[in-house]
Amino acid sequence: MLEDKRLWEDPIDFDKPKEECGVFGIISKSEEAGKAAYFGLFALQHRGQESAGIATFDGNTIKLHKDMGLVAEVFNEQILSNLKGNMGIGHVRYSTTGSSLAINAQPLVFRYSKGMLALAHNGNLTNVIELRKTLTDNGSIFQTSTDSEILVNLLARHCQNSMEEAIMKSMIDIKGAYSVVVMTENKLIGFRDPNGVRPLCIGKLEDGYVLASESCALDIIGAEFIRDVEPGEIVVLTVDEITSINTVANKKKCTCVFEYIYFARPDSNIDNYNVNFVRRAMGRQLAREYPVDADVVISVPDSGTAAAKGYAEESGIPFEEGLIKNRYIGRTFIQPTQKMREQGVRLKLNPIRQVVEGKRVVMVDDSIVRGTTSGKIVQLLKEAGAKEIHMLVSSPPIIFPCYYGIDTSCREELIAVAKSVDGIREFIGADGLHYLSLEGLLSSFNEAKEGFCSACFSGDYPIEIPREGKDKYNLE
Amino acid sequence: MLEDKRLWEDPIDFDKPKEECGVFGIISKSEEAGKAAYFGLFALQHRGQESAGIATFDGNTIKLHKDMGLVAEVFNEQILSNLKGNMGIGHVRYSTTGSSLAINAQPLVFRYSKGMLALAHNGNLTNVIELRKTLTDNGSIFQTSTDSEILVNLLARHCQNSMEEAIMKSMIDIKGAYSVVVMTENKLIGFRDPNGVRPLCIGKLEDGYVLASESCALDIIGAEFIRDVEPGEIVVLTVDEITSINTVANKKKCTCVFEYIYFARPDSNIDNYNVNFVRRAMGRQLAREYPVDADVVISVPDSGTAAAKGYAEESGIPFEEGLIKNRYIGRTFIQPTQKMREQGVRLKLNPIRQVVEGKRVVMVDDSIVRGTTSGKIVQLLKEAGAKEIHMLVSSPPIIFPCYYGIDTSCREELIAVAKSVDGIREFIGADGLHYLSLEGLLSSFNEAKEGFCSACFSGDYPIEIPREGKDKYNLE
Amino acid sequence: MLEDKRLWEDPIDFDKPKEECGVFGIISKSEEAGKAAYFGLFALQHRGQESAGIATFDGNTIKLHKDMGLVAEVFNEQILSNLKGNMGIGHVRYSTTGSSLAINAQPLVFRYSKGMLALAHNGNLTNVIELRKTLTDNGSIFQTSTDSEILVNLLARHCQNSMEEAIMKSMIDIKGAYSVVVMTENKLIGFRDPNGVRPLCIGKLEDGYVLASESCALDIIGAEFIRDVEPGEIVVLTVDEITSINTVANKKKCTCVFEYIYFARPDSNIDNYNVNFVRRAMGRQLAREYPVDADVVISVPDSGTAAAKGYAEESGIPFEEGLIKNRYIGRTFIQPTQKMREQGVRLKLNPIRQVVEGKRVVMVDDSIVRGTTSGKIVQLLKEAGAKEIHMLVSSPPIIFPCYYGIDTSCREELIAVAKSVDGIREFIGADGLHYLSLEGLLSSFNEAKEGFCSACFSGDYPIEIPREGKDKYNLE
Amino acid sequence: MLEDKRLWEDPIDFDKPKEECGVFGIISKSEEAGKAAYFGLFALQHRGQESAGIATFDGNTIKLHKDMGLVAEVFNEQILSNLKGNMGIGHVRYSTTGSSLAINAQPLVFRYSKGMLALAHNGNLTNVIELRKTLTDNGSIFQTSTDSEILVNLLARHCQNSMEEAIMKSMIDIKGAYSVVVMTENKLIGFRDPNGVRPLCIGKLEDGYVLASESCALDIIGAEFIRDVEPGEIVVLTVDEITSINTVANKKKCTCVFEYIYFARPDSNIDNYNVNFVRRAMGRQLAREYPVDADVVISVPDSGTAAAKGYAEESGIPFEEGLIKNRYIGRTFIQPTQKMREQGVRLKLNPIRQVVEGKRVVMVDDSIVRGTTSGKIVQLLKEAGAKEIHMLVSSPPIIFPCYYGIDTSCREELIAVAKSVDGIREFIGADGLHYLSLEGLLSSFNEAKEGFCSACFSGDYPIEIPREGKDKYNLE
Repeated sequence: MLEDKRLWEDPIDFDKPKEECGVFGIISKSEEAGKAAYFGLFALQHRGQESAGIATFDGNTIKLHKDMGLVAEVFNEQILSNLKGNMGIGHVRYSTTGSSLAINAQPLVFRYSKGMLALAHNGNLTNVIELRKTLTDNGSIFQTSTDSEILVNLLARHCQNSMEEAIMKSMIDIKGAYSVVVMTENKLIGFRDPNGVRPLCIGKLEDGYVLASESCALDIIGAEFIRDVEPGEIVVLTVDEITSINTVANKKKCTCVFEYIYFARPDSNIDNYNVNFVRRAMGRQLAREYPVDADVVISVPDSGTAAAKGYAEESGIPFEEGLIKNRYIGRTFIQPTQKMREQGVRLKLNPIRQVVEGKRVVMVDDSIVRGTTSGKIVQLLKEAGAKEIHMLVSSPPIIFPCYYGIDTSCREELIAVAKSVDGIREFIGADGLHYLSLEGLLSSFNEAKEGFCSACFSGDYPIEIPREGKDKYNLE
Repeated sequence: MLEDKRLWEDPIDFDKPKEECGVFGIISKSEEAGKAAYFGLFALQHRGQESAGIATFDGNTIKLHKDMGLVAEVFNEQILSNLKGNMGIGHVRYSTTGSSLAINAQPLVFRYSKGMLALAHNGNLTNVIELRKTLTDNGSIFQTSTDSEILVNLLARHCQNSMEEAIMKSMIDIKGAYSVVVMTENKLIGFRDPNGVRPLCIGKLEDGYVLASESCALDIIGAEFIRDVEPGEIVVLTVDEITSINTVANKKKCTCVFEYIYFARPDSNIDNYNVNFVRRAMGRQLAREYPVDADVVISVPDSGTAAAKGYAEESGIPFEEGLIKNRYIGRTFIQPTQKMREQGVRLKLNPIRQVVEGKRVVMVDDSIVRGTTSGKIVQLLKEAGAKEIHMLVSSPPIIFPCYYGIDTSCREELIAVAKSVDGIREFIGADGLHYLSLEGLLSSFNEAKEGFCSACFSGDYPIEIPREGKDKYNLE
Repeated sequence: MLEDKRLWEDPIDFDKPKEECGVFGIISKSEEAGKAAYFGLFALQHRGQESAGIATFDGNTIKLHKDMGLVAEVFNEQILSNLKGNMGIGHVRYSTTGSSLAINAQPLVFRYSKGMLALAHNGNLTNVIELRKTLTDNGSIFQTSTDSEILVNLLARHCQNSMEEAIMKSMIDIKGAYSVVVMTENKLIGFRDPNGVRPLCIGKLEDGYVLASESCALDIIGAEFIRDVEPGEIVVLTVDEITSINTVANKKKCTCVFEYIYFARPDSNIDNYNVNFVRRAMGRQLAREYPVDADVVISVPDSGTAAAKGYAEESGIPFEEGLIKNRYIGRTFIQPTQKMREQGVRLKLNPIRQVVEGKRVVMVDDSIVRGTTSGKIVQLLKEAGAKEIHMLVSSPPIIFPCYYGIDTSCREELIAVAKSVDGIREFIGADGLHYLSLEGLLSSFNEAKEGFCSACFSGDYPIEIPREGKDKYNLE
Repeated sequence: MLEDKRLWEDPIDFDKPKEECGVFGIISKSEEAGKAAYFGLFALQHRGQESAGIATFDGNTIKLHKDMGLVAEVFNEQILSNLKGNMGIGHVRYSTTGSSLAINAQPLVFRYSKGMLALAHNGNLTNVIELRKTLTDNGSIFQTSTDSEILVNLLARHCQNSMEEAIMKSMIDIKGAYSVVVMTENKLIGFRDPNGVRPLCIGKLEDGYVLASESCALDIIGAEFIRDVEPGEIVVLTVDEITSINTVANKKKCTCVFEYIYFARPDSNIDNYNVNFVRRAMGRQLAREYPVDADVVISVPDSGTAAAKGYAEESGIPFEEGLIKNRYIGRTFIQPTQKMREQGVRLKLNPIRQVVEGKRVVMVDDSIVRGTTSGKIVQLLKEAGAKEIHMLVSSPPIIFPCYYGIDTSCREELIAVAKSVDGIREFIGADGLHYLSLEGLLSSFNEAKEGFCSACFSGDYPIEIPREGKDKYNLE
């Protein structure tokens, strides 16, 4: 029921993995840290739409505002005018149904023995059960079900000397994927797990520095991109300088490959690759792997478009906009009745008949999770007169769950776990179905094909995963 | 101030003409007229975002709900469950600031000597001042400032016999552009002015008929497109049949050319032309008229994209997505501070540096109203490293106001009135600027180049305009 | 279901007749007419809680804001700052479920042949069906189901000369109860039906005049009470003076007696009687008519309190607060489950056990409509240990419907229509039940016992009622 | 500015001390704990209007919902349907401006080494600074500025064995006033500080037990009052039985006397005294101490009414309702302009002229904090024609701050600190002013005059107060 509702609300986005967070931090001579964080989070909105929060330090105390909703809904002029200060951090969050509580929103702000601290976290820790047991045995209490609160308690217990030292000690304790921004009463600190699974980059302002999950959040406030934070690196930012602490000797970068396939904004650069360009290259590789005799290439907008253009480029088959997306659907959108659905009521996507009628169509999408949406789109196109539909997916089949901060749905829901490619093709009603090979995917980046986590396709997990498996693996 | 705010909220859409309305009507054996109208209006949302309304006839009485806001905001399940009936009409409305009052929202529902009537109107009457004087002299009163209320009073005064006759008599009185849907207690009627300036088409359901401003509203509820209502035609719909009354002997179709250039959805077909295809053709013609020696073609998303692709196609220069649009901006979005603006805060559009850096760029947009937004975009692209920027506009300069239902801003604000093409080029900071010729524009449709109103480019008004001029021309 | 919900929401107010409106008007040299009207309506809020509206004239045009909700909900600083002007009128409205639509909210603002007009009306016309037929036969249309719109159309059709003349002519056409304020572009006019059923009084400011349904609305803005508008009188107010037009030769004042019993605020004076004092006198008369051998007098708060004190005074039995009213119940209050109800969940009223335990209790209330609430209160008191409960009602049994602007529920719901006094006593579970006699009620005012409409008790209607009866008597 | 706004919004309540909390707990065989808590909190709404929260245990986990706002605003049917379970606790909170953050709302729910726990607290700890230092030195972190979070951390650190033991150990550590309800995964526990400053009572349901700050919260859900929790007592409730642990040998009850004077609902019984009866007795004592030669006794509604009636009773001077309170003022109420204020705009209270005109008036109120409101009321009455006004206050002058959970404003704002009684009389413009003596106040309860905290009048603090004084005494 819920599923159905969301399906109709947003059939495209529904059937995709879900990113869990975006983070942002700023330190400058201006007092406008709150407003800068607002714009930064706005640029990162695609990384999480359920809650948003900003904490600023105004010289005396840390101010915090966070709530469920989009950035533009959570904040208004009056709220932002209370978030003055020359330092600030922000967070946007997506979360699965069970945990979508305001209390789990970030940043977390807390007092500890040395003063006040704010923290925002993107990623997922994999040894939280052990960590939490140790902490509660020593008297810690937990008010949220987030792994971020565990991190906060670790920092508080390790902070006898400096915060930098507390972070280093905590990085020994914790396992998993994390890109974190921390604001103390006098500095802004960012750190990234030893494999650098989740992105984090540094930007420069005239009078300060910025940290952000993606470079598009630097662009929006006019900050210049400096570099990505290195795997295992701690960067300490003041208004004037960047200090770097490297915590791992032999770092092995494993950037999440799904950031490039689906999550990140096309105008972002992550770990030296521009997202749009990589997507285009995936489409070209797909054309090399699966040339199809077709009349037109279309995409499932918006995330499939870059790969579709790459496919068209390489294959020489013309690209057309074949599906028009209605962008006015809000959160409270109403479902059609059953009768209407049978009539083919189509809320979010409408085919342009002239583009597909009588044609052999290549339809490119970036990934398939459950397959239900793909099936509906194929049906729409057939009704609009398409003669053949070949679905081409610019990533391999997803067959393993992610433990590093992405909600790929539980394993039973993944259509590629239960069905062969041909079984999926039949399920969605397409005339052809091809997935990009894992090798082909990785070759879209570079020749070495290294430096990426592709565990959801291969099961080859770069960081130890919890023994309990994901189903038992939660804090609620 | 207000202007600035809107500019930053939505710099692209701000600097465009504004459509004023979309209309929808349905009659079927189902009781779900309200829900069907909801989805129909949702598909027409791009034609008006300030208010929305639906009226249904439930066998006894006409129920009405209308309010300021988007379709998804104005209605909820409970409200729709009160809008039962086998007939319904709906309306979405954009309006200029002065008139954006809930009381002006449509449909208008009223009782007259023969019972109840509901009416929704897209367009603009040009002889309202005379009409209103005559009516008030005879005791009519007016509660709104809309020309639709004048139409309603005329219908009430002409309805001694049938509603069809009342419409015919009223069409003798009124001048201007109008596509209207009317619901009486037993039929659904649509009619279009003798020049057919605003669109209106007919769709067929299994058990009834639909009227809509654009065909995309038929698609969303699974209705089959039958044909457009003819200029000057009155169509009377029951569950079983369409009756047509032709009111003009020598009709001269003059469909608003801006419907194709900017307003209508690309997946709509209007008066036998598919919007997307026409836009593509305009882009190709633009390439023929103004070939540019360039490295890449980009578009100002979303409305410039089809023409940009046509340009790329004809010129052989590759098309790339060079500007990424952030789609999360809501109504209450906050402005950056002055300092941030100087730093280059870019809320709605972000260039992909890799696409434009060091390149000679052709940037295609569909139209320019004031030029301020175009100037900002050119600046963004220059900052991202573009070597040259040639702006190519897929329509001629707008130099005359529209009296037929479009808000093109007052004449003083139109940049093309005050400046030459080269002056505009200088103002926006581009290296080149070319507008599609009027002849080229019309040739994108057919060889005869006839059947369109292009008065905003040519001043050649097909219907008499008010003597008072537009500035004095209002009912408030 | 709905009934039950409202019962639990507000069990006291639910079981009472409902007033339909309050009106307010102001003309002064200040530009703050909107704000003054806001405070005036706020003081009249008890006369209608479903919608509120204010119209002001700013020298050029009439501005209007109205919506569903309480005065404090409908207006905010920004809205009021748009309602500038030296003249304004306002309206609060209660309405029965079927008609609670925003479109029926008042004031009505309209343009007619002579300019703009705003009107607010308290009362009920009794010959609307005839009036509406005549008007629609002559081409008028109606957008609301209110009799006020009929009045507006009459005024527009009679306005060849002055508005005063149009009002006089309209007063010949209309029958019923009405207290009306009208604002033209240069004056404020008030008028009251020839029997003066609904109240309307005049106040003086330093630099202008005020009209209001009750004198408490004068007090709140510091206006001095001058006098009541006379039955059949038209008063025309400018900043400097009051002009009076008397339209009836032999006026027979028939002020609604329920204004004193229940509706009006105790601090108001209506037609020369202070409401609180009259209520106190009713209680004293009740004690004279029905002396009871009891230990304590309590009231059903708040409207029964004044009469209860009068009863205590006359009888010598001490008055105590025996029932505490919880004032935090909002509109969206949640119902207890069935099990909770059986346990005696009591939301709105709680007895003070020490006051009633083991006592013979006289409980005074002002009226009984359906009797269900009275029954619940008697049960509460019994559970709290009251030995005997004698309910004493400071008005006679309601057995006839009101056609003059009060919603007494339909006749079938009136418990006194179906049951004898003893039957009602049994139904509510009291040990005694006595109603004040009609003669006793009227003697609370003066010796002549004249000048009041008490048709709901006597069936003696001072103004012709519609032939169709109330059930067919509506405009929807 | 803020002050002024609140003053006009609610002039009566503004000038009173503020209670900080109300608590509620339930355990029964029914699954409706959430709904019962809702009604319980609703009855306790007068103890705190800024936030409300409920936590229930559904057999597996503790569910929590809390937010800023009134009980009726914070919860709706859907939210309550998620708060199933046979155990639940709830909290309403008032807080001073600086701390009115959603994050400080209660109940607090947390996980600790033994599972989950929820806690709601009324009162104020006085040694929080020491406690917090000790806790943070041992690694605890704090997310709120409430002393309740300190209590929670203490419980977590003391819980090696049972929760009862953890509470006992924590009661050794903490100083101050506290009435607390705690819900573990299998029991409901209540405890009260060794002096019993804040109230807490026990009620019995057919199938379970209830804890509440005041007995009116038992009445609303049909629970039978059993007894008050004793000072220093811990009560452990299951569905079947009450287990009691007494932690103090020589308890010295010191119930806050202001609970009786102003805070508590008149229908509540606290520590064996009915609030209404005590207030009445205070009024009688006031009449004995200060007989005045007057014509009428009126009260400042609502809290002064019971004492006014006592005064009238004892003195023989008749009691009348002289001031009518408008109950529709909402949170967003708009201020009158300066000019209107000078004209005497009176929003919340309106005198009945007939009651006071030409009279010598005794006006009884329960307390004076700043005196500004009293001054305004005296002025209103003078304008309404009162000949003399004697203000009689049913409590002594407040001259010491409260450290036990009441916000009496800071000491500088207390008018009785700066001015003599005659100075205050002059400030408020009354002809006479008398405060009840402390001895007289205490004699209203019993002859021994013992068992109450009256430190705000006497400075005689029964529990050690913080050395830092109140101004430095906060956690923010």
